[in-house]
Amino acid sequence: MLTQELQQKIDFKTKPTKALGLLESIAHQIGIVQQSLSPSLNQPTIVVFAGDHGVAQAGVSAYPQEVTFQMVMNFLQGGAAINVFSKQHGIALHIVDAGVNYDFDPSLKLVHQKIGKGTANFIETTAMTKVELQTCLEAGKTITQKVAASGSNIIGFGEMGIGNTSSAAMLMSYLCDLPIVDCVGRGTGLDDSGYQKKIALLQKAQAFHGAIDDTMTVLQTFGGFEIAQMVGAMLAAYDEGMTLMIDGFISTSAYLVAYKLNPDIQKNALFCHLSDESGHLKLLQQVGGTPILKLNMRLGEGSGCAVAYPIIQSAVDFLNQMASFESAGVSNKE
Amino acid sequence: MLTQELQQKIDFKTKPTKALGLLESIAHQIGIVQQSLSPSLNQPTIVVFAGDHGVAQAGVSAYPQEVTFQMVMNFLQGGAAINVFSKQHGIALHIVDAGVNYDFDPSLKLVHQKIGKGTANFIETTAMTKVELQTCLEAGKTITQKVAASGSNIIGFGEMGIGNTSSAAMLMSYLCDLPIVDCVGRGTGLDDSGYQKKIALLQKAQAFHGAIDDTMTVLQTFGGFEIAQMVGAMLAAYDEGMTLMIDGFISTSAYLVAYKLNPDIQKNALFCHLSDESGHLKLLQQVGGTPILKLNMRLGEGSGCAVAYPIIQSAVDFLNQMASFESAGVSNKE
Repeated sequence: MLTQELQQKIDFKTKPTKALGLLESIAHQIGIVQQSLSPSLNQPTIVVFAGDHGVAQAGVSAYPQEVTFQMVMNFLQGGAAINVFSKQHGIALHIVDAGVNYDFDPSLKLVHQKIGKGTANFIETTAMTKVELQTCLEAGKTITQKVAASGSNIIGFGEMGIGNTSSAAMLMSYLCDLPIVDCVGRGTGLDDSGYQKKIALLQKAQAFHGAIDDTMTVLQTFGGFEIAQMVGAMLAAYDEGMTLMIDGFISTSAYLVAYKLNPDIQKNALFCHLSDESGHLKLLQQVGGTPILKLNMRLGEGSGCAVAYPIIQSAVDFLNQMASFESAGVSNKE
Repeated sequence: MLTQELQQKIDFKTKPTKALGLLESIAHQIGIVQQSLSPSLNQPTIVVFAGDHGVAQAGVSAYPQEVTFQMVMNFLQGGAAINVFSKQHGIALHIVDAGVNYDFDPSLKLVHQKIGKGTANFIETTAMTKVELQTCLEAGKTITQKVAASGSNIIGFGEMGIGNTSSAAMLMSYLCDLPIVDCVGRGTGLDDSGYQKKIALLQKAQAFHGAIDDTMTVLQTFGGFEIAQMVGAMLAAYDEGMTLMIDGFISTSAYLVAYKLNPDIQKNALFCHLSDESGHLKLLQQVGGTPILKLNMRLGEGSGCAVAYPIIQSAVDFLNQMASFESAGVSNKE
């Protein structure tokens, strides 16, 4: 019923049928999520989950591990891309220490949910324990529930963690049953030899761990603390009836896990952009995601969510504010 | 010099090299246009040029001609998509009567630059006279100069005119030397038989007019009043040192003419979106334009400019507001 009413409202706006393209599907989707013909976006929020990775020490990134905590400090000081774009659109920003290898001052305006000072190196062991994984999922749920309680009904998921494209590639390879080479990219900008080394290291990890069937075990084996907390946060956002903004490659890898655990989450998810990180296109295809933006960005931090947010707002705005053929006295198609 | 300094400023921001993709090229381009390391977007403005087309009477559109004036009234009442999106982003909106087949009340808040009550039907004659064309170009220049004088340094070009995808397709076919079938689309939504009829009518027009070499004569022969005024407005915007936002198929066809008359205009032009109108992709390729958005929109009115504007703002904002590796104390690539 609502589906048809929404479609009718969209089709009777003063424009040719389907002429607003993707904006129309977004408007329709958010209407269904909110069970309303006049949905609204309230207190948009982006949560950036930061964590370190044991695998970073093996040399899978172009940047040193310390960049994770340095960028967290940059977020707190307002100097990163996600700060600029969030400010531009009035998006509330929360930075979560999910497991950074640094002792932050407890007085910092961080969400202190540190599970440990980085995961273990998954090339030679399991990244985290079962208990750590459970703690991650709970911690993710907690932050989403706080955001929802503050009145937000749309939440974006960003991350920061040197080495985390390696975790994301492993999750994708195992959960989508794809060869690792289809999943690995250059991350923050590896050169050819760095890229080959990364592939070789991840193949070594696959040889070490062998086949793993269970989704939760895959996440425990390869996932970063920030990815696992994102999974918990995404699942909770669906439960809270929020609209989810998925960012780039790593954010989508967390979504992939959440989607395996609860396929209904797709009803609430918007895919904000197609990252330039190789593997993201295939990953989006695997989860049936249509990206809103294709700007060749590959920064993470939730930057794609923030840049795409005004497009999502445009979708809601046209649904609420445009005149209909009837109200405007415009002739419809002959 | 400035080119290098701008690139350096972009590269030293706290992000992997090129990680902001198209936002980086946009920031660089606007820096060059404004000859500044810290460009700004002032009083963004969209001008919508409306005009009627003699060819509409031949049956090339899914909508009746009266929709042109009805949509102009809708613009003035704030009910159209372009109103909603301009309001969302604080974009000033001017509606120009370039040649609508309707007697508007002179008290309406229109820019009254009516050349005539629609062009002549180009299937059997030339759409406008040489004098009308010159008047169009001057009128376009006038509105841009007014916008520039108001303090605006970024201007978008939209249009409304039942039948104007036919004019645009003819301009493209002649000026790019492409078969008309490569240039014709379904406009506001023709069905298969309407689409075939449109192609046949445009082929008839080509047979009637034969080869035309001169750009201005092509514009005079097929162009709408609104397209010709846009050409004048675009050329003037370049002369004023403004950043130009080009919208979809028809806006790009006007840009094509302007580009043929002054190829330097490309330095100042941003292509806001890839329209779903068949032919636009090829047209963008012909003018070397990279579209910012690909949302399957095909509405015109400058709606693509308005929806893309926040992305352009994001580009300028990151250039001005993001921290550098040095200022934030973040380690650069190893």
